[in-house]
Amino acid sequence: MTEHKVTPWDVEGKVDYDKLISQFGVKYITDEQKAYLQELAKAKGLEEHVFLKRGLFFAQMDLDKIISAHKKGESIFLYTGRAPGGEMHTGHLIPFMFTKFLQDLFDCNLYVQIPDDEKFLFKKDLTMDTISSMVDTDLKQIAGIGFNPDKTFIFRNSQFIQKMYPLVLETAKRITFSQARNTFGFENDSNVGKIFYPTLQIVPTFFEKGFCLIPCAIDQNPYFLLQRDFAQKMGYEKNCTILSKFLTALTGPEGKMSASNPDKAILLTDEPNKVKKKINKHAFSGGRGTIEEHRELGGDCAIDVSYQWLYNIFEKDDSRIEEIKSLYSSGEMLSGEIKKILIEKVNELLVSHRENVSSAFENGLLDKYMHSGKLAKEMWAKNYFE
Amino acid sequence: MTEHKVTPWDVEGKVDYDKLISQFGVKYITDEQKAYLQELAKAKGLEEHVFLKRGLFFAQMDLDKIISAHKKGESIFLYTGRAPGGEMHTGHLIPFMFTKFLQDLFDCNLYVQIPDDEKFLFKKDLTMDTISSMVDTDLKQIAGIGFNPDKTFIFRNSQFIQKMYPLVLETAKRITFSQARNTFGFENDSNVGKIFYPTLQIVPTFFEKGFCLIPCAIDQNPYFLLQRDFAQKMGYEKNCTILSKFLTALTGPEGKMSASNPDKAILLTDEPNKVKKKINKHAFSGGRGTIEEHRELGGDCAIDVSYQWLYNIFEKDDSRIEEIKSLYSSGEMLSGEIKKILIEKVNELLVSHRENVSSAFENGLLDKYMHSGKLAKEMWAKNYFE
Repeated sequence: MTEHKVTPWDVEGKVDYDKLISQFGVKYITDEQKAYLQELAKAKGLEEHVFLKRGLFFAQMDLDKIISAHKKGESIFLYTGRAPGGEMHTGHLIPFMFTKFLQDLFDCNLYVQIPDDEKFLFKKDLTMDTISSMVDTDLKQIAGIGFNPDKTFIFRNSQFIQKMYPLVLETAKRITFSQARNTFGFENDSNVGKIFYPTLQIVPTFFEKGFCLIPCAIDQNPYFLLQRDFAQKMGYEKNCTILSKFLTALTGPEGKMSASNPDKAILLTDEPNKVKKKINKHAFSGGRGTIEEHRELGGDCAIDVSYQWLYNIFEKDDSRIEEIKSLYSSGEMLSGEIKKILIEKVNELLVSHRENVSSAFENGLLDKYMHSGKLAKEMWAKNYFE
Repeated sequence: MTEHKVTPWDVEGKVDYDKLISQFGVKYITDEQKAYLQELAKAKGLEEHVFLKRGLFFAQMDLDKIISAHKKGESIFLYTGRAPGGEMHTGHLIPFMFTKFLQDLFDCNLYVQIPDDEKFLFKKDLTMDTISSMVDTDLKQIAGIGFNPDKTFIFRNSQFIQKMYPLVLETAKRITFSQARNTFGFENDSNVGKIFYPTLQIVPTFFEKGFCLIPCAIDQNPYFLLQRDFAQKMGYEKNCTILSKFLTALTGPEGKMSASNPDKAILLTDEPNKVKKKINKHAFSGGRGTIEEHRELGGDCAIDVSYQWLYNIFEKDDSRIEEIKSLYSSGEMLSGEIKKILIEKVNELLVSHRENVSSAFENGLLDKYMHSGKLAKEMWAKNYFE
């Protein structure tokens, strides 16, 4: 097996999640935790969430604290983010969809950070202008997720830095160069902006005094592990995370999906026909070389991307996914057939997401998230010096 | 001789300026450069400046570029600053007084940075609240210097960070950890804010596209030496400096005057009687142990603080300072007598400065420097992304 390498910026090779769990100092989500969240969903009239049920969200740091805070009626808030960088694909929707689920569960505030500064500091050739138009495109997509407009604040670091700066300084004062280097592996030729940047990603965990839960992919956990070293000294709670695996790339189970290779990703803007073509042409198949062989040996669900996507994301119905697994691995269902099922499901999601994006646009939702909603207004009125 | 140690934060021991010149990679101010500035002063109807004539401002980096730009009518601007930290003393007035002289000479824009963020990052126990009230006190003093209200912008980093941030990121992207460490001597346990901070001090050198001249004490030069590595790649000019020695402390020629030991400094708020007492009691004397001995051997001007202060700052008249030197070193003038001359001169400056501070306050000058003057308005209206 290829040795994997995971930092907040790169995922290479096939990922060994057991190793990641120990490398990142986190734990698996327990059955009790799962049950609490799914019961809460039921009580709120929501469906149990497939990402949780099937283990796409699989790890956590102190999730029990969130559950206990919720039981006691203590204050909870959510924080996630999206770094600009090429068009958004289905993999980027996952943390946001799950974040919406959590916001519906806890009926709480959500902060969405757009670290345009991070992108600029880490990418040698990108200008702020280019990044700025990437951000504009992303924001339209994020506005379509369906977050609560009065309890969600979406902000670009470069635009909100004035308000954050006192907390940025407080945080920077508590992170040593050694800690930053040990956590993120900086080199002597890393620019000083990179070394400083973790501060910016940690600061929103201090936007409220309550318990902060961060839904994100596991590669982002190092920032939040670091926060726990000094949060309480600053008068805040240690943050908690709920962590997803990476969505397997269309072309196979090595690495996470990347928008920089458009073949490897289904973009949120891909029209139904394009989705069909991409999946038919590129979706890595666990099927056999010939129909005869496939009928005899069956498909390999463990490596079949169509099956993986259906299992982790798209097919909520337990008996139906069992049926697909059995038909496909017995050879009764062909590769083209399982792809057809996936194509329909993906297009269903994308068409509905695009409708949501349009209607968010028509209703000026983005302005609410960024400026005129209740929480956004409060955030812009804040003065952290006081 | 005590080995000296000079970084932008500490000056210890007796300073060897020849060594500093080579350590800081700067050059002595040449006679030609001095002559150009003093001729220019004459042409503007100003007095030749005693700080320049007597060598308190003694070193420079690329001052010829400023002179050449001035000759060609190219754009020049000035930049200096004042870190909050206890009450201001006469030593703090020096760069500002000289900066005013340069602004009068060149009739150009001046930017005054108040790095409240630096202070917070470098001083373990200081809160932003404490720093903020230090800044308020300093600003009143600085408003009394007499800068041109339409060509001077005074800003606190924590208040102007929003506007600076794009330039901050551009700059941070071009400074590696090695460079910052080599320049400023960071340790592994330095906080990441300290490592990032040089960026903030460099950014105002990019406030205009013209030639930036920075009048400051020599210990600040490392920031501006670093700027020269990448300024042109960013589309700006390399900055130039004109550098002062440290004002000898009242209690003797070791180290620079420090407001943290009030005995060692004449504070700008010290009333005439207090000045008299401080100088009489604490001014390090080059006089002899007894009057008889003094009459016989004479005073030692090289170590006598009263003489040093008169020479470097207060006694503009060349023949009068020669006379004082001759009288004092021959033993004709006693220690108490040279102190009396100094006391009068210091009080003359402080009384006049305090009048200027009052009248600046009455005329709302500070608001002009920070918000409503022509340059201040332009700066607040800027958008560095565009």
